[in-house]
Amino acid sequence: MNTSSTFSGMDETICALSTPPGTGAIAIIRLSGSKTIAIIEKVFRPLNKTLKVAELQSHTITLGLFGSGENSIDEVLVSIFRAPHSYTGEDVAEISCHGSLFIQQKILETLVEAGARLARAGEYTLRAFLNHKFDLTQAEAVADLIASNAKSSHDLALSQMRGGFAFKIKTLRQQLVDLASLLELELDFSEEDVEFADRSKLLQTINELYDELTRLAGSFKLGNVIKQGIPVAIVGKPNVGKSTLLNALLNEERAIVSEIPGTTRDTIEDVLTNNGVSFRFIDTAGLRTHSGDMIENIGIGRTYEKIQESTVILYVFDMSTITAKEIEELLADFREHIDDPGKHFIMVGNKTDLMVEVPAHVAQLFDIETIFISAKRKENINLVIDSLLRAVNIGELTDATIVSNARHHEAITKTLSALTNARSSIEKNITADLVAIDIHSALYHLGTITGEVTSNEILANIFGKFCIGK
Amino acid sequence: MNTSSTFSGMDETICALSTPPGTGAIAIIRLSGSKTIAIIEKVFRPLNKTLKVAELQSHTITLGLFGSGENSIDEVLVSIFRAPHSYTGEDVAEISCHGSLFIQQKILETLVEAGARLARAGEYTLRAFLNHKFDLTQAEAVADLIASNAKSSHDLALSQMRGGFAFKIKTLRQQLVDLASLLELELDFSEEDVEFADRSKLLQTINELYDELTRLAGSFKLGNVIKQGIPVAIVGKPNVGKSTLLNALLNEERAIVSEIPGTTRDTIEDVLTNNGVSFRFIDTAGLRTHSGDMIENIGIGRTYEKIQESTVILYVFDMSTITAKEIEELLADFREHIDDPGKHFIMVGNKTDLMVEVPAHVAQLFDIETIFISAKRKENINLVIDSLLRAVNIGELTDATIVSNARHHEAITKTLSALTNARSSIEKNITADLVAIDIHSALYHLGTITGEVTSNEILANIFGKFCIGK
Repeated sequence: MNTSSTFSGMDETICALSTPPGTGAIAIIRLSGSKTIAIIEKVFRPLNKTLKVAELQSHTITLGLFGSGENSIDEVLVSIFRAPHSYTGEDVAEISCHGSLFIQQKILETLVEAGARLARAGEYTLRAFLNHKFDLTQAEAVADLIASNAKSSHDLALSQMRGGFAFKIKTLRQQLVDLASLLELELDFSEEDVEFADRSKLLQTINELYDELTRLAGSFKLGNVIKQGIPVAIVGKPNVGKSTLLNALLNEERAIVSEIPGTTRDTIEDVLTNNGVSFRFIDTAGLRTHSGDMIENIGIGRTYEKIQESTVILYVFDMSTITAKEIEELLADFREHIDDPGKHFIMVGNKTDLMVEVPAHVAQLFDIETIFISAKRKENINLVIDSLLRAVNIGELTDATIVSNARHHEAITKTLSALTNARSSIEKNITADLVAIDIHSALYHLGTITGEVTSNEILANIFGKFCIGK
Repeated sequence: MNTSSTFSGMDETICALSTPPGTGAIAIIRLSGSKTIAIIEKVFRPLNKTLKVAELQSHTITLGLFGSGENSIDEVLVSIFRAPHSYTGEDVAEISCHGSLFIQQKILETLVEAGARLARAGEYTLRAFLNHKFDLTQAEAVADLIASNAKSSHDLALSQMRGGFAFKIKTLRQQLVDLASLLELELDFSEEDVEFADRSKLLQTINELYDELTRLAGSFKLGNVIKQGIPVAIVGKPNVGKSTLLNALLNEERAIVSEIPGTTRDTIEDVLTNNGVSFRFIDTAGLRTHSGDMIENIGIGRTYEKIQESTVILYVFDMSTITAKEIEELLADFREHIDDPGKHFIMVGNKTDLMVEVPAHVAQLFDIETIFISAKRKENINLVIDSLLRAVNIGELTDATIVSNARHHEAITKTLSALTNARSSIEKNITADLVAIDIHSALYHLGTITGEVTSNEILANIFGKFCIGK
């Protein structure tokens, strides 16, 4: 299905800043489209005068002056990628300039004057998709890859970008295509009342597909959690040391993040990344004051809300003051969540600095995992982190194909619904033409994932979320 | 003079992020040093398996997987620049990766594990200098070029980077070297009492040098102003509309600046750029509230201070209420600054929205340039901008060599002082050996500008101010 004719401006040559906005040693401005070489010829003069822009080979880099007419804006390196051997599949040039805002802006202005237009969000990747360099899942993975900030989400995106997920979906879809062909054959010979497709074999294949897709749909919860970070709630009564614990947890890792200058300014949530897994602390951002203390004003209702949104709950209590009665009440209050197999409830007894030993009534009464720490002295914080890692246990699923994209999850859910209808039709011995309609519906929804079936609306929706320059 | 042996770690291979920090479509990590190719061999596997990293040619780009062992971090493009045809003059590789913080950090970590170390601030440009790719003025211009955000400062930095300023200084220094040689010759034959250097010709050459260097030193004020932006003070009594005028001036241009997303976050001062000239409004940053209004609490002393620091003064008054007497007092109060040839004093009569006509006593009493505007209605703001541009008149000096660097200015001043001593010695008929000392002192100071004479201290000072990755 060729959709390129229905997107406007796809025959134009586009330009955009591809490196992060701001000032740096260098910046890259990318140009893509059929007029790329002609535009570069107008605005770029190689320092080596024997070189002709029109004759520059693919995958080579040339030093020269950039500017229209005799005005030089900068000394730049121009990398040439000839179609189809480029990111977009079109002729591409990358201009590596000194990273001042003024130069970036002037180069873009000059390119526009020379006949390019500013790229829309995600337009490079959209063109790559339209030119069959990528399928849709790979294109979507590019955006995920750029956004991912931990090993687990990164690995998921990289595997998807390299085509692992698409291969899985295409394999499943091929089985459906085979089913559909058999049914189609029956329809062609419908007067003769033959059954090319053995109904029991048909049912078996549909069931196999159904089970596999159900597993994939089920992996979405984990996939989404990997992508977004594991939601963790730190709850407990006021003054038990919840914010001190949060700070202690975050301090463990801050040093690593800040090795690249400027990275921390992008950290807007409280996220702890350890062993490649991101833990996202629910609803702490914005509540913290400059000194790092949190405003402790959370009623029991608010606590329940936080627990609902979380996969892991750290319940913090003050082991130096808690009574046996309070422990009993606490276990009763939270029993529902403690027993919820979808949640990991961990008790954290704080303030070992105030107690030489764990009192017997505290040590014995808990029937669930309990860790004793001193958040203030940063003692045993590593035990809490170990517990968090054990609670999610992502490792066991890393080799399996995982759905991490809400759009894919929705398409799989719709495919499952169509398969359910097909199965029920076959079981009720309904004629092949009606079964075929359900199979076609399943084929359609599965096809939207990789883009074998697509529409401008789907594409606009996907690529509109990209950053400009990608 | 070879200083490379005295800087530690110059034989190591360095790596750093060269694009602005943050998330973007792509990021560039640069590697430089003798182990570059060996390190790339360890961590990069071209997708085209027939390609060998060790055989990759200079100025070519190769697509492949980055990662140590079998672990892939990203699909990247690697650009190879073989010594000496690279920025630093050493073997250089640029790794163009997807612009996530995670990938940037992992790639740097992998490069360090493979034998590189993180680059110090400005180390790439320092190496370029030590390898004679640049002289010092060109290296310094790289930093200026990255920092410049207006056409005038940009053009100045670009011309300096391309060697215009260095050529001027080297030409002048050569004349001094010739003088020194003649004097040296005399010293060799000192028993014979000959004068190889005709004293009157010597004086003439020194005077010519002196005049040229004086002109250069004098250009520093303009050069500095171009680099930093023209300082402009907006002064006047409370409630005459100073902040409204400032907002009106800035609003004229904000739209252009914000065409590149994220650029405005770097604007920490109130700067108006028009026709390639930056105007920096003195002491407005920090005083402005969220609504854009300024806290009006500036006494007359504070006003004088602002005027001292400024090249252009916009004196704002309320034309709807000002009396003839107030005008007389005002002119008397500021007469000293109005007559100062180094300053441009412009009267701005605000609130034409409240007056149909300029009252006769206002129109006639001013003997200096006066503009009538309505800051509130944004009327005639363009006249103020025209006046600002006329006041600085940078155009007339663009072809001349201009000093924009405080270090160069200091060196020129010291050279002038040495030349003054030499001239006085010659005039007093003092022996050649003493004149030679002064000429050598002049040679030394002039040589520090381009780096023909240098020390580790000078270099550490210059390159320490660079960003990491350049």
